[in-house]
Amino acid sequence: MALIVHKYGGTSMGSTERIRHVAKRVAKWARAGHQMVVVPSAMSGETNRLLGLAKELAPSKPTDAYNRELDMLAATGEQVASALLAIALQAEGMESVSYAGWQVPIRTNSAYTKARIESIDDARVRADLMAGRVVIVTGFQGLDELGNITTLGRGGSDTSAVAVAAAMKAEECLIYTDVDGVYTTDPRVVPEARRLKTVSFEEMLEMASMGSKVLQIRSVEFAGKYKVKLRVLSSFTPWDIDINEEAASGTLITFEEDEHMEQAIVAGIAFNRDEAKISVLGVPDKPGIAYQILGAVADANIEVDVIIQNISKDGKTDFSFTVNRGDYAKTVDLLREKVLPNLGAQEVVGDTKICKVSIVGIGMRSHVGVASKMFRVLSEEGINIQMISTSEIKTSVVIDEKYMELAVRALHKAFDLDLPLV
Amino acid sequence: MALIVHKYGGTSMGSTERIRHVAKRVAKWARAGHQMVVVPSAMSGETNRLLGLAKELAPSKPTDAYNRELDMLAATGEQVASALLAIALQAEGMESVSYAGWQVPIRTNSAYTKARIESIDDARVRADLMAGRVVIVTGFQGLDELGNITTLGRGGSDTSAVAVAAAMKAEECLIYTDVDGVYTTDPRVVPEARRLKTVSFEEMLEMASMGSKVLQIRSVEFAGKYKVKLRVLSSFTPWDIDINEEAASGTLITFEEDEHMEQAIVAGIAFNRDEAKISVLGVPDKPGIAYQILGAVADANIEVDVIIQNISKDGKTDFSFTVNRGDYAKTVDLLREKVLPNLGAQEVVGDTKICKVSIVGIGMRSHVGVASKMFRVLSEEGINIQMISTSEIKTSVVIDEKYMELAVRALHKAFDLDLPLV
Repeated sequence: MALIVHKYGGTSMGSTERIRHVAKRVAKWARAGHQMVVVPSAMSGETNRLLGLAKELAPSKPTDAYNRELDMLAATGEQVASALLAIALQAEGMESVSYAGWQVPIRTNSAYTKARIESIDDARVRADLMAGRVVIVTGFQGLDELGNITTLGRGGSDTSAVAVAAAMKAEECLIYTDVDGVYTTDPRVVPEARRLKTVSFEEMLEMASMGSKVLQIRSVEFAGKYKVKLRVLSSFTPWDIDINEEAASGTLITFEEDEHMEQAIVAGIAFNRDEAKISVLGVPDKPGIAYQILGAVADANIEVDVIIQNISKDGKTDFSFTVNRGDYAKTVDLLREKVLPNLGAQEVVGDTKICKVSIVGIGMRSHVGVASKMFRVLSEEGINIQMISTSEIKTSVVIDEKYMELAVRALHKAFDLDLPLV
Repeated sequence: MALIVHKYGGTSMGSTERIRHVAKRVAKWARAGHQMVVVPSAMSGETNRLLGLAKELAPSKPTDAYNRELDMLAATGEQVASALLAIALQAEGMESVSYAGWQVPIRTNSAYTKARIESIDDARVRADLMAGRVVIVTGFQGLDELGNITTLGRGGSDTSAVAVAAAMKAEECLIYTDVDGVYTTDPRVVPEARRLKTVSFEEMLEMASMGSKVLQIRSVEFAGKYKVKLRVLSSFTPWDIDINEEAASGTLITFEEDEHMEQAIVAGIAFNRDEAKISVLGVPDKPGIAYQILGAVADANIEVDVIIQNISKDGKTDFSFTVNRGDYAKTVDLLREKVLPNLGAQEVVGDTKICKVSIVGIGMRSHVGVASKMFRVLSEEGINIQMISTSEIKTSVVIDEKYMELAVRALHKAFDLDLPLV
């Protein structure tokens, strides 16, 4: 008997019929002797519906008070899904109870709409498990120290599930979604894409952050930090398939080096067209510049991805970074109004029509020439590279958005990812 | 400067356009210098939508655990409406914050789906008022001592509003609804029905319980108990009408005898076709019988309205009462299975095709012959009376449902309620 956490995405919870399906699957696991904690997302479309209503009424300038109300509003989506799942489980003959984030409680900081989990009190959930109940915990949300509801941002239910699994030392956290695992790249772009049976934590982290979109990045970070055994699998298999077969399906995220001895050099190609590029030009090259620019951006709760600073020329340098496209205008305004005047920089320029393409693989660590092979492939396709960023297990390039599919397909083929697994 | 509580019903909150309208009205009151607490219902249709989803998934036998989840589910409707109203107020330039029942907290017992308010902690709300914020408190819900969400049952937002007004010693509680006050009877049945400028607490209590449906009965009880000045008025007047004109519109519920010196003998005709009649026949006439029957019914959380016990004949009596039609089958089953075997009674019979018609008026106290006039009017219309129940200010009859409109119209005319107010 093990403690297992299941997480179901919005599509898996998308109708009463689908919720009944989830309940039958969870009941199967519970009847097999497992203690079950389930973290559901809101029914698909619900969060957008709620935020759409808010948008119709929103003040012209979003404030902290406004964001607090957005969280009050959006958190109801998961509460509805959780109560419905508890009801469906009761109809299956299982004792079940649902808890909103504040009831557990899942404690977060007060960064409304993008809060961070700080701690989870598992006493109440554990008491229910001991009493034989299936416990449903709303994803996506928590409680700040002032007693306000917070939400974790888009995809936050993954993070909730992993955090709960970590806090409760669960045997495994299974993320049920509408894909059946992690692929070498998006099959909609490259039909030859293959499912990976295992992917390392580090690779997953890079894949998720690069837009593979299977898991929210913070959930993978959490899993890595707390060594949560994490598996991504499909909620669209029949609920009554053999439980051992189900337990071995999907993609397992691994944390041990030696599990990867057979790994290909490049595990996959990730891409992301949700970013925009911003450059601050003619920045005086002196200490504290990066902090002056990015500190202001971070204070505005804007997440930055790629950061590049070129070498200086005549005591001036150019500083570039990428942000979410939705934050582009806000970031440029912020830099022009607040940062540029004190910085002595010349100009802020940017481009939203970019994309980022990355090759990811733990095998890259010990193989030279992987990055240069990437650049050669892109060059052969006539694709200009605007920014380059590398890490031990990833090489990313920012290119014109219109070349994205071409670049991904060429790289997928060049790194032998089209080939069947041996 | 006074502390004022506004309550808005589901129709008043039915769309973002209507919510904006409510926000402008509330802002007008706040700008006139009042401290404002607003209690909104869920957007119209939302509670039914949510409970409809639950019904699709419900277990065959409703349990306490199921009802707990229904409350988790249904409470989200008011949370959504409250957050949206806070947002709309912010867009009007007012500082505003919304609180779910558990955040105030509004403490209740644990009778899920029909909980009772036990206490309200007003510290958090008061601090916001002092800071110049408009405070939105979700109606319909509370928190039990185990930390579970509870709801107060249909129409419970009225009770929430009055309870908040009582706890905070508000100057007045204004219930905005889709009618412009309390009428002598339902204008859909009697087009000549008149709006009452004032109605006594006792009359309102009888009118509400009899199905006038303007206010939830418990809200009127609460108002009476805590002497809350309560006014029913329309949310469909333009939001920018003169605030003094608005403050004097609708119907004021009064609590002092001498405010009624000019009152007509009969204030109104109430009716209700939501009830069913149940009779336990051949009950041995001995002490404790009423408790044996009604105790079991009350334990099942079924509300009983009219109760009649006829005089005994041959040591046996018949015991009759009415319940909500929705509780009819459950009540009959309960009596047959649990009560009849121990009671030595012969049989349980019932009828769902009944209605209750009442004449209500504080003036009845000092006028004889009012009830007999009622019986004469019904007799002249050829309507058979099945049950009679009287109180100091009300006489109710249970009659065949099909005669309801006829009875109400005849009584409205006979008691001069068709005449214009002098």
